[in-house]
Amino acid sequence: MRILVLHGPNLNLLGTREPEVYGRLTLAEIETEVRRAAAAAGAEVRFAQSNHEGTLIDMLQEARPWADAVVFNPGAYTHTSVALRDAIAAVGIPTVEVHLSNIHAREPFRRHSLTGEVAAGVVSGFGLHSYLLGLDAALALARQRQAAR
Amino acid sequence: MRILVLHGPNLNLLGTREPEVYGRLTLAEIETEVRRAAAAAGAEVRFAQSNHEGTLIDMLQEARPWADAVVFNPGAYTHTSVALRDAIAAVGIPTVEVHLSNIHAREPFRRHSLTGEVAAGVVSGFGLHSYLLGLDAALALARQRQAAR
Amino acid sequence: MRILVLHGPNLNLLGTREPEVYGRLTLAEIETEVRRAAAAAGAEVRFAQSNHEGTLIDMLQEARPWADAVVFNPGAYTHTSVALRDAIAAVGIPTVEVHLSNIHAREPFRRHSLTGEVAAGVVSGFGLHSYLLGLDAALALARQRQAAR
Amino acid sequence: MRILVLHGPNLNLLGTREPEVYGRLTLAEIETEVRRAAAAAGAEVRFAQSNHEGTLIDMLQEARPWADAVVFNPGAYTHTSVALRDAIAAVGIPTVEVHLSNIHAREPFRRHSLTGEVAAGVVSGFGLHSYLLGLDAALALARQRQAAR
Amino acid sequence: MRILVLHGPNLNLLGTREPEVYGRLTLAEIETEVRRAAAAAGAEVRFAQSNHEGTLIDMLQEARPWADAVVFNPGAYTHTSVALRDAIAAVGIPTVEVHLSNIHAREPFRRHSLTGEVAAGVVSGFGLHSYLLGLDAALALARQRQAAR
Amino acid sequence: MRILVLHGPNLNLLGTREPEVYGRLTLAEIETEVRRAAAAAGAEVRFAQSNHEGTLIDMLQEARPWADAVVFNPGAYTHTSVALRDAIAAVGIPTVEVHLSNIHAREPFRRHSLTGEVAAGVVSGFGLHSYLLGLDAALALARQRQAAR
Amino acid sequence: MRILVLHGPNLNLLGTREPEVYGRLTLAEIETEVRRAAAAAGAEVRFAQSNHEGTLIDMLQEARPWADAVVFNPGAYTHTSVALRDAIAAVGIPTVEVHLSNIHAREPFRRHSLTGEVAAGVVSGFGLHSYLLGLDAALALARQRQAAR
Amino acid sequence: MRILVLHGPNLNLLGTREPEVYGRLTLAEIETEVRRAAAAAGAEVRFAQSNHEGTLIDMLQEARPWADAVVFNPGAYTHTSVALRDAIAAVGIPTVEVHLSNIHAREPFRRHSLTGEVAAGVVSGFGLHSYLLGLDAALALARQRQAAR
Amino acid sequence: MRILVLHGPNLNLLGTREPEVYGRLTLAEIETEVRRAAAAAGAEVRFAQSNHEGTLIDMLQEARPWADAVVFNPGAYTHTSVALRDAIAAVGIPTVEVHLSNIHAREPFRRHSLTGEVAAGVVSGFGLHSYLLGLDAALALARQRQAAR
Amino acid sequence: MRILVLHGPNLNLLGTREPEVYGRLTLAEIETEVRRAAAAAGAEVRFAQSNHEGTLIDMLQEARPWADAVVFNPGAYTHTSVALRDAIAAVGIPTVEVHLSNIHAREPFRRHSLTGEVAAGVVSGFGLHSYLLGLDAALALARQRQAAR
Amino acid sequence: MRILVLHGPNLNLLGTREPEVYGRLTLAEIETEVRRAAAAAGAEVRFAQSNHEGTLIDMLQEARPWADAVVFNPGAYTHTSVALRDAIAAVGIPTVEVHLSNIHAREPFRRHSLTGEVAAGVVSGFGLHSYLLGLDAALALARQRQAAR
Amino acid sequence: MRILVLHGPNLNLLGTREPEVYGRLTLAEIETEVRRAAAAAGAEVRFAQSNHEGTLIDMLQEARPWADAVVFNPGAYTHTSVALRDAIAAVGIPTVEVHLSNIHAREPFRRHSLTGEVAAGVVSGFGLHSYLLGLDAALALARQRQAAR
Repeated sequence: MRILVLHGPNLNLLGTREPEVYGRLTLAEIETEVRRAAAAAGAEVRFAQSNHEGTLIDMLQEARPWADAVVFNPGAYTHTSVALRDAIAAVGIPTVEVHLSNIHAREPFRRHSLTGEVAAGVVSGFGLHSYLLGLDAALALARQRQAAR
Repeated sequence: MRILVLHGPNLNLLGTREPEVYGRLTLAEIETEVRRAAAAAGAEVRFAQSNHEGTLIDMLQEARPWADAVVFNPGAYTHTSVALRDAIAAVGIPTVEVHLSNIHAREPFRRHSLTGEVAAGVVSGFGLHSYLLGLDAALALARQRQAAR
Repeated sequence: MRILVLHGPNLNLLGTREPEVYGRLTLAEIETEVRRAAAAAGAEVRFAQSNHEGTLIDMLQEARPWADAVVFNPGAYTHTSVALRDAIAAVGIPTVEVHLSNIHAREPFRRHSLTGEVAAGVVSGFGLHSYLLGLDAALALARQRQAAR
Repeated sequence: MRILVLHGPNLNLLGTREPEVYGRLTLAEIETEVRRAAAAAGAEVRFAQSNHEGTLIDMLQEARPWADAVVFNPGAYTHTSVALRDAIAAVGIPTVEVHLSNIHAREPFRRHSLTGEVAAGVVSGFGLHSYLLGLDAALALARQRQAAR
Repeated sequence: MRILVLHGPNLNLLGTREPEVYGRLTLAEIETEVRRAAAAAGAEVRFAQSNHEGTLIDMLQEARPWADAVVFNPGAYTHTSVALRDAIAAVGIPTVEVHLSNIHAREPFRRHSLTGEVAAGVVSGFGLHSYLLGLDAALALARQRQAAR
Repeated sequence: MRILVLHGPNLNLLGTREPEVYGRLTLAEIETEVRRAAAAAGAEVRFAQSNHEGTLIDMLQEARPWADAVVFNPGAYTHTSVALRDAIAAVGIPTVEVHLSNIHAREPFRRHSLTGEVAAGVVSGFGLHSYLLGLDAALALARQRQAAR
Repeated sequence: MRILVLHGPNLNLLGTREPEVYGRLTLAEIETEVRRAAAAAGAEVRFAQSNHEGTLIDMLQEARPWADAVVFNPGAYTHTSVALRDAIAAVGIPTVEVHLSNIHAREPFRRHSLTGEVAAGVVSGFGLHSYLLGLDAALALARQRQAAR
Repeated sequence: MRILVLHGPNLNLLGTREPEVYGRLTLAEIETEVRRAAAAAGAEVRFAQSNHEGTLIDMLQEARPWADAVVFNPGAYTHTSVALRDAIAAVGIPTVEVHLSNIHAREPFRRHSLTGEVAAGVVSGFGLHSYLLGLDAALALARQRQAAR
Repeated sequence: MRILVLHGPNLNLLGTREPEVYGRLTLAEIETEVRRAAAAAGAEVRFAQSNHEGTLIDMLQEARPWADAVVFNPGAYTHTSVALRDAIAAVGIPTVEVHLSNIHAREPFRRHSLTGEVAAGVVSGFGLHSYLLGLDAALALARQRQAAR
Repeated sequence: MRILVLHGPNLNLLGTREPEVYGRLTLAEIETEVRRAAAAAGAEVRFAQSNHEGTLIDMLQEARPWADAVVFNPGAYTHTSVALRDAIAAVGIPTVEVHLSNIHAREPFRRHSLTGEVAAGVVSGFGLHSYLLGLDAALALARQRQAAR
Repeated sequence: MRILVLHGPNLNLLGTREPEVYGRLTLAEIETEVRRAAAAAGAEVRFAQSNHEGTLIDMLQEARPWADAVVFNPGAYTHTSVALRDAIAAVGIPTVEVHLSNIHAREPFRRHSLTGEVAAGVVSGFGLHSYLLGLDAALALARQRQAAR
Repeated sequence: MRILVLHGPNLNLLGTREPEVYGRLTLAEIETEVRRAAAAAGAEVRFAQSNHEGTLIDMLQEARPWADAVVFNPGAYTHTSVALRDAIAAVGIPTVEVHLSNIHAREPFRRHSLTGEVAAGVVSGFGLHSYLLGLDAALALARQRQAAR
């Protein structure tokens, strides 16, 4: 089982950025926890982060031959990027969308997810735990997919 | 750790209702799986279902002295009930909203969650697995809350 | 042929409620006429009324083993209830929606029918006659369904 | 009792046009059934069809001295024609609007009926049966009107 | 003079629910104050609370033979219930709508009152005092009505 | 000076159609008054009416070599016809839009004038007098145009 | 016959203000033409202009005992002033709204007239001529009113 | 206790203006009743009315050193004046908004109150009684404020 | 290969109508160029123009037994005609929509194409060249269709 | 160089009004700073403030013969006054709009500036500094204008 | 004649991505066909693709000294990128927008083209053929431009 | 004092791009003027431009350890980029948004600033001068911030 964990714009600032909204954990700490959980499940993970919409599309496309599933936090692009939405649909790898904060409880322009329309599902609001639940869901999807082959 | 798992309207028909959208699992089967997972985590669960908005509000209110957290699938009331939204906020028990299908991928009137605005977080799109991930999140929230006391 | 005739909120007040909008016939008088027409067509009818959205959902679900078709006047829930809409779709019995007054000629918030989106068809504006035409349509749908088995 | 049955644009193609939406019956077959039902009720019917909004207005105006009621399927003009709406109101003959398909279950731009705002009532979703129910309603309205004179 | 005082969903939690919005008074304390004021005015009051939209409709309908006026706090149903709006109009007893908090100063979805469209008037924003002012207004309306008979 | 006076759909029913909105004057009586006023001003008038959007466009196009100005009551097409709007702009004869009733005081869908966007000006609300004022304005525009050549 | 001619904000700058939109005539020149036309019709006119919404309301109220009709160009307040709208309705003198430019051909926020909702009618787009046509209409309304007494 | 009672535009016409909406009481009669009620409560009242938005703002500002609370009927400015809204917030005296008619039951553009967003509360729909209830609420607020000092 | 080239309202005025928007070519000149291109491709073309929505529907319906594809410039009906949209879908001949000007660069009400929703594709903005490209596309579609039989 | 500095409604309360939004500086202190900066630049300034929309229009009109440029803080009228917008356009003196707070960061109804549509430019969010930057911009515009003569 | 053919996000996946929407041709195959057609017309083509909005802007800017026209498929950026819209306008090379699928027949959010507002024209819905028609149009525009120099 | 001056998409084309909107100054000339003004104020400036949303985010993040304030012209991303908005908020350096043209006077889609919601303030409409005023504001903010430490 191989899982790509992809982080969108500004997530590299985590821990230092508006901690009252996003918590005090850094991205490195999140990745450590996710790696530990993946190891426990016998899965391999890769991490990538970019502030560039185009680079995120490239990364999704390049994940095709390698990844069995994707855990994706598209950050602000969640709400504006038709191009990322198309990339998820085009690439066809099961993708679990995750958000640290609860997007339903934030500003109206953050309540709808364009990328979520084509994701397998969405986990939102649990901080670091959103990533762990997302990994869990991604592994289940990858297993189902393997079983279906 | 005591968790109330609450199901909203029409979920009692699960397995027989539009299986292409909601899958073939019955509610009883979901509850069996959730009970098993709860037991494995050393937690106690109670289940309740109602088609009545008012009864769901009553159940949330009555859970107050007993439950440490709630896993709630408000079904169609997700999108229309300000009263359930107020009940979640008023009761103050950490509540995880779950959906079998991915609400972001359905009809526009199902894309926004009124109840999700006051839930701790939302898990949507993973079928039975949404409940298991929701239980996992609810337990974590209950533990944090206990620790904070 | 067995037909459930279901009346939504405030229809129990018929005849005494705003007669300039809804006419002077009582619900009992309407039921007498519908029963007479059903008998003439060799069909059995049952009647039920509730002011509770949840009870109406319960009644639709419980009609499953008995009714061949439903004539349903959802009253004010026509325009607000996603849960009733889901119940009609989930139960799968052919349902004819009827309205005493012409919903297209009333306040804008009464012009769209959420429940009508999943009903077989809608009859609106003919007073008592809406029920009789609805019964006629329901019987035809029930016969088609029987023939298709 | 004299009833004008008026068909709007593209209904002349019935049976050959998108049968998955509109069924396989031709307009001639519908008219045969309606004529039979009218004869059984001792009523006279005339049929007319046009693809022209203006011609439909002319026909409604010219029906004034002859028709006791109108059964009208305005087709696509249902949703766009203020002029037909005004013609129905100006002519003052009781008019029953009918639709083969259920307009509440179709594209959003087909869900509101401008002409229905001034019709006596609307029957929608029962295929050929919509016309027969519409005839039934039109006859009842014509009788009430005659009685009221 | 007989006045029904009706409380909508979640008002039973008053005093324990979000006190920064709704204050620290319990519903029992409010009822004591209202009863005292009614007694001083020589009026009889009855109180009822429900979290169920349908039960609130039933209560309004059943108040018909008894009550001279109603003081009604529809809570969250204020903004979503066409059925309660219809019940107030159908029952025809003068109804004064009251709110503890100022609905014009809250979230946009709480700014319009569907039920207020058919109430005699609305008092909003004065905490317990909203009930006392509402009682005063209800008594005046009941007296006017008695005088008009 | 030659003026075309053009009447849109349903205006041929004037005097018999909803007199509480449009008054009791017939179109013939209006034309008599307009002809008298035109004669007094030494101008020639022609009248035409059609219920057909296309015929009204044809008439505007054919007026080109003859008319110095147009007085046009587009009736219901005022609010829906981009094609008539384009015809007025394309033909290039000064056009005065007139309405018997005050369109600003009617249903919201009658408040905006698509054709008025390209007319020289609009006169609305004065019954027969709207036509006489419109003729007066049309003659002034025709004189200005003649002077400008 | 006594007519008040009332000019709204910025009309005192006429002739010097954006002449490509409003023409080169000054307000004094317009008033000279209107006075001449009124004299020819045997009517008395008074003129007033203000940039103050409140002063325009005062002037309308004070015109009550004197004026038989009002010709009113509310300028920019046309589109924003509910208070002027209420003043026209409250004062009850027949009021003709006039505009130099064609409001239907300008920016969207100038296309609807709040004050026109309660005016007798509206004349828009003919420059100085709008005032003369407005005076003509106002005199006719004043005569009708006198005749109706 | 000193209370300023402030009336907005067109309220000076009360009793003579559209009595079917606003009743037959004059403003002087209302003020007499309010003065009597204030005297009974041992409070001093001052009254002021203006049709000018700016004057109403001035009056609110000038009330600062004198008034303990304000009863304010902003009339049509309720729905359009951000400046009055800002004045109420800036001045900081507890302000009770009152309306003779029920704004929730009137035209859509009268249903929201901009000024009500910053008022302490709103009383709407009880005619003269709205002022008396408003006075009662204002006195209570003034007393609370005095107690809090 | 037989191609119907259909022109909508006001296109008969081409070359004389607002040349800054639509160019100076006449419809006859366009048809000469299209005929030449069709001949070079060994195809037969017929041309028709109408200002009448109904006539355009008739022409599309009558093209059924003859045409292999249609090149259609629906002019102003592009944006308002659900009936033409339905006719294109009902007739089932591959239809290429063409526009002389770029509809995406014009007034907002010209930016969406109702007819384009059911056309095979749309070519917009190239003047006469739009027709030639449209013919080219229509021939390709006709060939594909022939090949598929 | 002569600059008019114009302050809109409620700005006279500055320093005492909601200091968390508008800061603690009084209007007099701002004017002292602006006068100092103007003197340093060799320019003359005049100050005026009004709560009246009409008076602000009068002041802008009266500034015409004197001022070379205007620094204008329209306060709440920024968002509602078409009349002030028209006055700025009509008067034709270069006008710099300034705001103490950042209007893009406030309530949605404060985010668009009607007056800013016709101002030369807008400076928003820098407290007192907004005025100083506005003065600087106004002087530059006045110089350019003088140079262009 | 030199033509830049520019492909937006996800077009590199063509042939493998949702073939039911976009067909089975790869981007390489499309480029081969376009190159062949360009060669036949004696024109030179260059191809470029990027998933990055910024890179597409850079490519458009860098094409300035080389390209005579551009054929541009902006993919998902069509509907969201004001920056690409500005780049097309700023660069000033005639640009033909092309789409494989018919954007008017897809999800509502794909129906408007921001980039198309500043393109010379748009070709949409013909698969590979859209590119060939676009090349044809681009060559015509380039020739016109050369002729105009 | 160290100030980063950041330019968004297409600003590198300045002087050559639509000079009627953006003026004839090049970006280099603007930077020369800004550098001169910074030097005069004893401040250090760095300049950067990118057409890439992601690169602009990177640059803002990388400015953190160096810059005391930012002057940012986000160009077209002003209106579409939630990601840049988040970057400004996350980085936490005082940011002054500047625009060459007056965004309030342009197309509706350019009137709101997403990035301005989190900037300290906005300067818009003064060409090169917008940058100089922005620098002035940025220096003041940087000084305040230094003083506050």
